[in-house]
Amino acid sequence: MTGPFDVLTIGNAIVDIIAYAEDDYLVSENIIKGAMNLIDVERAEHLYAAMGPATEQSGGSAGNTAAGVAGLGGTAAYFGKVSSDQLGTIFNHDMRAIGVHYETKPLAGDPPTARSMIFVTPDGERSMNTYLGACVELGPEDIDEAVVAASNITYFEGYLWDPPRAKEAIRKAAEIAHANNRTMSMTLSDPFCVDRYRDEFLDLIRSKTVDLVFANEHELKSLYQTASFEEALAAIRSECELAAVTRSEKGSVVVTREETHAIDAHPIEKLVDTTGAGDLYAAGFLFGLTHDRSLEDCARIGGMAAAEVIQQIGPRPRANLADLLAQEGF
Amino acid sequence: MTGPFDVLTIGNAIVDIIAYAEDDYLVSENIIKGAMNLIDVERAEHLYAAMGPATEQSGGSAGNTAAGVAGLGGTAAYFGKVSSDQLGTIFNHDMRAIGVHYETKPLAGDPPTARSMIFVTPDGERSMNTYLGACVELGPEDIDEAVVAASNITYFEGYLWDPPRAKEAIRKAAEIAHANNRTMSMTLSDPFCVDRYRDEFLDLIRSKTVDLVFANEHELKSLYQTASFEEALAAIRSECELAAVTRSEKGSVVVTREETHAIDAHPIEKLVDTTGAGDLYAAGFLFGLTHDRSLEDCARIGGMAAAEVIQQIGPRPRANLADLLAQEGF
Repeated sequence: MTGPFDVLTIGNAIVDIIAYAEDDYLVSENIIKGAMNLIDVERAEHLYAAMGPATEQSGGSAGNTAAGVAGLGGTAAYFGKVSSDQLGTIFNHDMRAIGVHYETKPLAGDPPTARSMIFVTPDGERSMNTYLGACVELGPEDIDEAVVAASNITYFEGYLWDPPRAKEAIRKAAEIAHANNRTMSMTLSDPFCVDRYRDEFLDLIRSKTVDLVFANEHELKSLYQTASFEEALAAIRSECELAAVTRSEKGSVVVTREETHAIDAHPIEKLVDTTGAGDLYAAGFLFGLTHDRSLEDCARIGGMAAAEVIQQIGPRPRANLADLLAQEGF
Repeated sequence: MTGPFDVLTIGNAIVDIIAYAEDDYLVSENIIKGAMNLIDVERAEHLYAAMGPATEQSGGSAGNTAAGVAGLGGTAAYFGKVSSDQLGTIFNHDMRAIGVHYETKPLAGDPPTARSMIFVTPDGERSMNTYLGACVELGPEDIDEAVVAASNITYFEGYLWDPPRAKEAIRKAAEIAHANNRTMSMTLSDPFCVDRYRDEFLDLIRSKTVDLVFANEHELKSLYQTASFEEALAAIRSECELAAVTRSEKGSVVVTREETHAIDAHPIEKLVDTTGAGDLYAAGFLFGLTHDRSLEDCARIGGMAAAEVIQQIGPRPRANLADLLAQEGF
C-alpha cells in the first residue's frame, strides 16, 4: 500500500462495450433508455449479436470516479472484482495506468469479467445493459482495512446493492472509515436502482452510514418518491450532512443543512456521449473536497470533469484533466 | 456463404489497444515512429505495463479495409485468424456487426488473439507495436475457395509476409482468383515491411500475381530504393496494371500504364489519429472500383473515407460511411 489516499472508491468493475444505436432499437429490445439495465448471460449474448461495431473502454461507475480523481492529480484507490481473463487484464491495466491503487484479488475462473453494452443514441444519451459477471463475488474479504483507514473519503456506488454480498463489504468499509474519522460517501447511481433499494438507501443516510450523497435530479426524486425537486432537496438536506445533486444542463446544486449553492453547468461544444457524466462530476467534487476547495469550487471542478467526458465516446476522459484544471485556473 | 462479394480482404486479425504518448516515450522505448513494430510476448507485456489508459477497437489493416467496404455499402468478406478468447470474440463481433462475411476458424487455444499497442503522439501520428499471436497460424487451409471465386477483388496486406505460412495462403488465393478472372490486389503496408520483403513483393508484382497495388509514398520509394517519388512512380506504372499511391495531405496519385490522376486530399477539420488512413483509402478505392466509378472518383472516395477515420480515435470509422458518401454526392 502506498497511501494515504484522497479517495477510495468501491464498485462493480466493468468493461464498457460502446456502440451507436437508434431509439427504435432500444424500443424493439425493451431497453430502458438512459438507465442501467441488468442482464443475464443469455440476454448479453442476444444483445451483443445484434449490436453494431463497438469500442471497448474500462468503465464501472466508481471505477470511472477513481480514474477521474487520479486524472485530476489526486491520490485514489479502488476495490472491485474482475476475473483473470482478457477483459479483467484490460480493466486492471487501465486503473493502474492512470495511477489508481488497485489490488482486489481477481477471480481465478468463471464468471468472467463484467461488461456493459452501452448503446449511445443520436441525442448523446447512453443506455446501459450490464452483465455483472465476476462482480457477484465481491464481499467483505475484499475490503483492505489499511486502505480504508488511509483514505480521506470512501465512496461507493448504489449499484453495489445488485450483487449479493457487496453490501456487506460496504458496511464493513463504513465501520472502518468512521472508526478512523473518515467520510463515507455514496452515489444513488440510477433511478431504477433507487427504486429497487429505496428503503436500504434511506437507511444508509438516516443511520449516518453515509455522510455525503451524490445523486442526479431523477434519482433524488425517486428516493423521496416526489415529483418536486424542491421537496426532494429539502428532504435530503434535513437527513444528510452534505449532498451534491446534478441536473444535466442546469448544472448542480450543493446543499448542507445551512447552505445552498447552485452552480451553472460547464459550457460544452457538442454532446457526444453522456456515459460517465455523473461519475466524473463526483470525481471532480471529491478531488476538490480533499484539496480544501470551497463547496462551490468542488461543484465547478465536478462540472468541468463531467463536461469533458460527455464530449467524447466512453466513460473516462482521454484528455489530461489535471492540465484542464490548471487551464481553468483552479 | 452469401456472396458474391465486391471485395475479399486477407490479413492479420488484430485488436488495437490505443493510448496517447509523448514523442519522448517512443524514443525511450526504441519504438520506430509511424511504423509497425513487431514485438514478442515479453515486449508486449513490458510495453503494456508502461502504457497509459487505453481504448480497444478491432483493427488489422485488411480487416479495417473490409469493414470500410461494408460501411460504404459494398459487400465484403475477410479471412484472418483469431483465437477463441475474449479479444477474438470482440474482433469477430465487429466484423459481422458491420456486415463482413467472416468465417475463418478460430484457434481453440494459444497463442491468443493478436493485439497491437498503438501510441498516438500529439501530432496525430500512430506508432504500432504488434504481437502477432494467433495470426501465425493462418495458412492455405484457411482459404475458402468459393469465397475467393465469388469475390470481384481479393486484397491482402504485405504484413502477411511476417507470419510464417500466410504467404502460402495468398499464393493459393491468387491462383483461385485468376482462374476465375478476378483481380488480385495488395497493399505494401509499411516501409519497413517493404524493406523486409522487397524482393518477394517485387516478384508478386512482376509475376502478375498482383494486379493492383496500394502504397504510400514512403513504401513505394522503399520498394524501388529511390529517394525520388517520380522515379518510384515511373517504376510501378511500368510493372503494374494499376497503382494507387497516397501522399498524406498531398492527396493521392493513381497510375496505369497510360494514365495519371493526381487527386487532392479531402479537407479535414482536425487530425486526431492517423490509424487506419491507408486502410480506409483502400476501402474507398476498392468500393469505387467495384461500383464502376472512374479512377478519379475511386481516389476521391478513398480520400473521403481516410479523412473520416483520421478525425477520430481508432482505425474504423464510427460514422456511417454510406451516409457520408451520399452527402458528398457520390
